[in-house]
Amino acid sequence: MRGRSMDQAVSRTEYRNAMARVCAPVNVVTTNGPSGRCGFTATAMCSVTDQPPTLLVCMNSRSLQTEVFLANGSFCVNVLTREHVKLATLFAGSEQEMAARYAAAEWLDLPSGNQALKDAIVSFDCRLAHMHRVGTHNIFIGEIVNIRGRKDGQALLYFDRNFVHVPTQEGSFGG
Amino acid sequence: MRGRSMDQAVSRTEYRNAMARVCAPVNVVTTNGPSGRCGFTATAMCSVTDQPPTLLVCMNSRSLQTEVFLANGSFCVNVLTREHVKLATLFAGSEQEMAARYAAAEWLDLPSGNQALKDAIVSFDCRLAHMHRVGTHNIFIGEIVNIRGRKDGQALLYFDRNFVHVPTQEGSFGG
Repeated sequence: MRGRSMDQAVSRTEYRNAMARVCAPVNVVTTNGPSGRCGFTATAMCSVTDQPPTLLVCMNSRSLQTEVFLANGSFCVNVLTREHVKLATLFAGSEQEMAARYAAAEWLDLPSGNQALKDAIVSFDCRLAHMHRVGTHNIFIGEIVNIRGRKDGQALLYFDRNFVHVPTQEGSFGG
Repeated sequence: MRGRSMDQAVSRTEYRNAMARVCAPVNVVTTNGPSGRCGFTATAMCSVTDQPPTLLVCMNSRSLQTEVFLANGSFCVNVLTREHVKLATLFAGSEQEMAARYAAAEWLDLPSGNQALKDAIVSFDCRLAHMHRVGTHNIFIGEIVNIRGRKDGQALLYFDRNFVHVPTQEGSFGG
């Protein structure tokens, strides 16, 4: 076996351009509690384990929302549909005022105090179980305490810096 | 504000059914080094930060591959296209023999010793920087040391327990 080189040789730009080639589901992550209400758009979300039911979401540590999420100790991941392009852009920062972001959609109060997007494909309400800092970001690990969703809806995805969606189920193909 | 309830009330089945409603990109994650060559199919992968360029992927801790990944200390995330449905099923476990899994595709040797899927949309070669255990799974955090990819290719996605894909770029829609 030849020598193995692990020298870092990837620029931020190269990384960002490559990550743009990964098609990712678009979510609005919200929190509501004693420390206030806020939320942001995230594509960096994935399943972790079903024992206990757990997911993770990554958040820029420089965001002023970090303290609110930590203090509330809970968050809700709302998986968007293709009807939510405008909402995704608002929560991604085109709108700075939280009240205005929330006013653009209907929300349901959850037992945790968080609010679920009424017409999300699925909403995962989570207790913040752990947080890991990696570089500029924090990985929020959430144990899921409540799930709600709908049976239909076309997933909103982000790919090549565009919003896209998958065809209806009829357009799927098997292995 | 009313009392906030964080009681866990989500079953594994409920969680699995809900996560099936999250449209996720399909990847084959490989390692190759002094401890051997292996790989598995993963949808639980996401970007973490661009400082330093970092991603994460989740892996069942009961997998026999865990020790190989840890000992090699590196891995490569290959983002699949719609042409890779068969490869995805092989690396998901329909084929147990690693040699047979690898024989189903063409691979390129990377400076790290890992191998990149030749026609992946993009391949992220990573140094295993950290690992966090959460329930049954490990979160592998990888600092990216090399990136390669192609300019085209339709992303392979998994949604509602089916393989699906996004339309070509012409089918995308803006905000």
